[in-house]
Amino acid sequence: MNKYKVKILPDNIEMLVEENTVLKEVFTEGGIKFEFPCGGAGKCKKCKVKIKKEGEKEEEVLACQTEVKGDLVVEIIKREQKHHILEKGVKRQVVINPLVKKVYLELPHPSIQDNRADWTRLIESLGQKGLRANLKVLRDLPEKLRKSDFKSTVVIAGDEVVAVESEDTTEKLLGMAFDIGTTTIVGYLMNLNTGQELTHVSSINPQTKYGADVISRIIFASQSAGGLEKLHKEVVMEINSLIEKAVEEAGYKSEDVYAITVAGNTTMHHLFLKIQPRYLASAPYVPVVKEKLTVGADDIGIRINPAGKVFLLPNIAGFVGADTVAAALAAEMDKAEELKLLIDIGTNGEIVLGTKERLYACSTAAGPAFEGAHISCGMRGATGAIDHVSIGEEYKYTVIGDTLPAGICGSGLLDAVAELLKIGVVDTNGRILKPDQIRNKLGGKYKDRIVTINGILSFLLEKETATGQPVYISQKDIRELQLAKGAIAAGIEVLLKTYGAKVEDIKEVLLAGAFGNYLNPESACRVGLIPPELRGKIKGIGNAAGVGAKLALLSKKEFKRAEMLSQKIKYIELSAVPEFSSFFAKKISF
Amino acid sequence: MNKYKVKILPDNIEMLVEENTVLKEVFTEGGIKFEFPCGGAGKCKKCKVKIKKEGEKEEEVLACQTEVKGDLVVEIIKREQKHHILEKGVKRQVVINPLVKKVYLELPHPSIQDNRADWTRLIESLGQKGLRANLKVLRDLPEKLRKSDFKSTVVIAGDEVVAVESEDTTEKLLGMAFDIGTTTIVGYLMNLNTGQELTHVSSINPQTKYGADVISRIIFASQSAGGLEKLHKEVVMEINSLIEKAVEEAGYKSEDVYAITVAGNTTMHHLFLKIQPRYLASAPYVPVVKEKLTVGADDIGIRINPAGKVFLLPNIAGFVGADTVAAALAAEMDKAEELKLLIDIGTNGEIVLGTKERLYACSTAAGPAFEGAHISCGMRGATGAIDHVSIGEEYKYTVIGDTLPAGICGSGLLDAVAELLKIGVVDTNGRILKPDQIRNKLGGKYKDRIVTINGILSFLLEKETATGQPVYISQKDIRELQLAKGAIAAGIEVLLKTYGAKVEDIKEVLLAGAFGNYLNPESACRVGLIPPELRGKIKGIGNAAGVGAKLALLSKKEFKRAEMLSQKIKYIELSAVPEFSSFFAKKISF
Repeated sequence: MNKYKVKILPDNIEMLVEENTVLKEVFTEGGIKFEFPCGGAGKCKKCKVKIKKEGEKEEEVLACQTEVKGDLVVEIIKREQKHHILEKGVKRQVVINPLVKKVYLELPHPSIQDNRADWTRLIESLGQKGLRANLKVLRDLPEKLRKSDFKSTVVIAGDEVVAVESEDTTEKLLGMAFDIGTTTIVGYLMNLNTGQELTHVSSINPQTKYGADVISRIIFASQSAGGLEKLHKEVVMEINSLIEKAVEEAGYKSEDVYAITVAGNTTMHHLFLKIQPRYLASAPYVPVVKEKLTVGADDIGIRINPAGKVFLLPNIAGFVGADTVAAALAAEMDKAEELKLLIDIGTNGEIVLGTKERLYACSTAAGPAFEGAHISCGMRGATGAIDHVSIGEEYKYTVIGDTLPAGICGSGLLDAVAELLKIGVVDTNGRILKPDQIRNKLGGKYKDRIVTINGILSFLLEKETATGQPVYISQKDIRELQLAKGAIAAGIEVLLKTYGAKVEDIKEVLLAGAFGNYLNPESACRVGLIPPELRGKIKGIGNAAGVGAKLALLSKKEFKRAEMLSQKIKYIELSAVPEFSSFFAKKISF
Repeated sequence: MNKYKVKILPDNIEMLVEENTVLKEVFTEGGIKFEFPCGGAGKCKKCKVKIKKEGEKEEEVLACQTEVKGDLVVEIIKREQKHHILEKGVKRQVVINPLVKKVYLELPHPSIQDNRADWTRLIESLGQKGLRANLKVLRDLPEKLRKSDFKSTVVIAGDEVVAVESEDTTEKLLGMAFDIGTTTIVGYLMNLNTGQELTHVSSINPQTKYGADVISRIIFASQSAGGLEKLHKEVVMEINSLIEKAVEEAGYKSEDVYAITVAGNTTMHHLFLKIQPRYLASAPYVPVVKEKLTVGADDIGIRINPAGKVFLLPNIAGFVGADTVAAALAAEMDKAEELKLLIDIGTNGEIVLGTKERLYACSTAAGPAFEGAHISCGMRGATGAIDHVSIGEEYKYTVIGDTLPAGICGSGLLDAVAELLKIGVVDTNGRILKPDQIRNKLGGKYKDRIVTINGILSFLLEKETATGQPVYISQKDIRELQLAKGAIAAGIEVLLKTYGAKVEDIKEVLLAGAFGNYLNPESACRVGLIPPELRGKIKGIGNAAGVGAKLALLSKKEFKRAEMLSQKIKYIELSAVPEFSSFFAKKISF
């Protein structure tokens, strides 16, 4: 088979690739950071690149649809660079009792009067019953103890002594809490002695190359040869990079990290553990495991201290995962005296409703629209995204990073549609009115922005952009938003009905996740994403899943509480609720 | 460096070895089964071989002291072949509740109304709380369940689900109980459903190449490069061969074996686990671990079902190991209403004394003499060994295998000395009398047998032998026996004193181990190995350590009981008991 030279700009990477290799694969093999939100289906058109063959004219193509047929220069035109990822969340007090702890011991020396075994000496000094040894610890034990004159530090995880270190090393005891989202990964480096956050790091989940949403990942994991292995490795390697970055920033070594907690949706959870998520994708959407788990860092290739452990928060069901448990833990849903509603809109939209007596949860696939998927000019909340829009006497918008706009993110979309509704450019059925149909005086002011783009009626947000292409909202985009908000609103309705409560009974609405934190509650209520009755009760709580993961890391009790929450929260499968579709249909209009 | 051809007969193996390689190493490298009781110190003279260099005369040399200086033919003259290893012991009733169990489940199929996770479905059907999953089980789980329409067999060890198998495999559930002795390894293949012994297998511990006793093994493990690794591998490989042999004999596969229990002395225990035994060899004789342990078969290279577990019975101290615990378990020392004495004479001699209220143990290095070490014509209880001697009006002896004698084993030595005492050929100080000093009439009959061999006064047992060399007992041999029996007798005395009892208070003497089972109690009492007051209370209980290992395998309760025994039995370090040396001195004479 012929091989051709492919040069990728601006990275300036040259590769030799086989004839007919799709550019997407070239990028993946080359480790080029580039996203394929629709997983390479050719649908989202987000992977446009410029290619130039020798002696031919430059042309724009989709990287996921283009095969290499000769020597080639590929230029990446647009790459989302600096993402706004939520790294702060609710703050909660917790008694520090971390999942892994260190105890410094000065053991009495062996003598003929006290010739206890090394291990017996150690555990009797610890005074903790039922501790288990692992073989490695026992093999190292005699030298570790004698090297430092029987002054040693014992590292304990659960009921297992995972390491014994010479001298007093109690000062060095770090942990990391990870929130593995479908789109983004956030990690918090914590001092497990003090509970202090040393730094946080984040990146795009590298699995996005294989699809923007969980379904495309599951398909890749279950249908591509070695797919599961690939997705597993991608996330593990990325987490390893994040660990390295975090400890370097904080002036530590990765060996100082002994524990990691992981909160992610059920698919992310399974992929991280290299557990086949196949049966999550079709009814009855069964996960392999929901219970909390502890695995050796070594067993899954996580590069922290070789004796370190990875603690996975429990899932609730196939589409309500450990991230929701972590968010509910952060929000203390299990202590709610009055009815609380928790909405976590990431790539999926999970909803939890209830009090300390009873809790219910459901999941809607509503998230992606708010992350820019299937939206004409949609993009994530990154540099260049229009994130807020206000249309009244004045026409105003803000752009993340204060640059020329390159697209619109979820909160911008929500604002724009809410504003267009307010000024009568969009009617309650979600239809963009033609200029001559507009009756609203304010709306009339913006008639000229109603244009037809690619044959679809659209509202032009900005002509002067970073890309040279206009940024706009199309009729189709509004339909996407209606489906998304309709699903969430109907989900809330189902949970209310299940609980046996009315909208008015909800005393607090907690919005978790990036989108939930940035959105304008006014706009959310106006479009009906959140029932308008709840206006004034809405509170953004940021990356609550991350906070939950941190709490579990710092406190055994909180980790246990997460398990209790995962059992307590009753999952409602919306597709099994007969009323759901009629609720949904009703909630689609504004 | 020059290389020479070495041919080894009768194995007919040809090897190319470097100049100056010691023959012992040649044997080891070539996998030649041959023993070096003194570990290659040149002391025991047991490794005599014939060598013939081209054009030179055949000569006898010690394999441990001879270097290869040219092409060579080596003939192994004498090799102990068929060993009498104890494979039967006390029988005890036990309720079958094995360390690993199987449960067959027919799980309800997932549905939209019952979309529990696979793992949740499984453990809820089991109805056992707190079960842990391992990662491999979870990774295999979805396919295993669906392959057999949710009819599956769960394999449980402790609180861990170690495997899930499709269909009903409960019929196939085997375990093996191993008694790893310094000299011999015995394994019992057990049906864990019925408790039935399917077969037993045994072999010489291949570590004997590196020394006959624990001290030479410890020295090898701690001072030779890679010594620990070598000793560990030797025993693991031998156990793997025994497993293979046993399952083949019984018509099973090694995958059907899920659990192994191991009882061995503390050194064997450590070497089996590749734990450094260095600190056992010098005061204060500290082991690394005494507590019972469970390790994955895979983790130490034991070839049973990959999900299988190895359960190690607990030790008591550096020189009273899990074999003694197992023997005490078999003998139910923890239920003794009246004072019981348990003596296990293998390569070492361990003694346990007490009742259910209090138990004490000590160890003496008395064993090797009874296994033939340091005895002129000494050999183990194998074909050709004189095992019983009776000298009175008639002169009689028996030989194992009814062949011409090749040497004398422990029980033979004990008998011979007891008889020589009785007929006044040996006096109460242990001196062989010269022919003219004999006053006893019966003794006078055997005057002609008193000869000087290699300059030492000896009693000739037989001239016509399998080797062509006479079989005799020398003055030096009697001194060895005196030291051995004196140590054991003094040990008993120390334990009695510690307990606060008199010899007469002992109601039962249990003799475990090969030597203990074959010896003539009359002789033991006559030479004072066992206090003569206990004549009539002595009972051989065979390989009690093996029985204990079987009990622990078949019953969780017995395994736990072993742990309790190991804690209950208080170890008395004889070297720390001031009276020991005076007791010992007193006990040396007959």
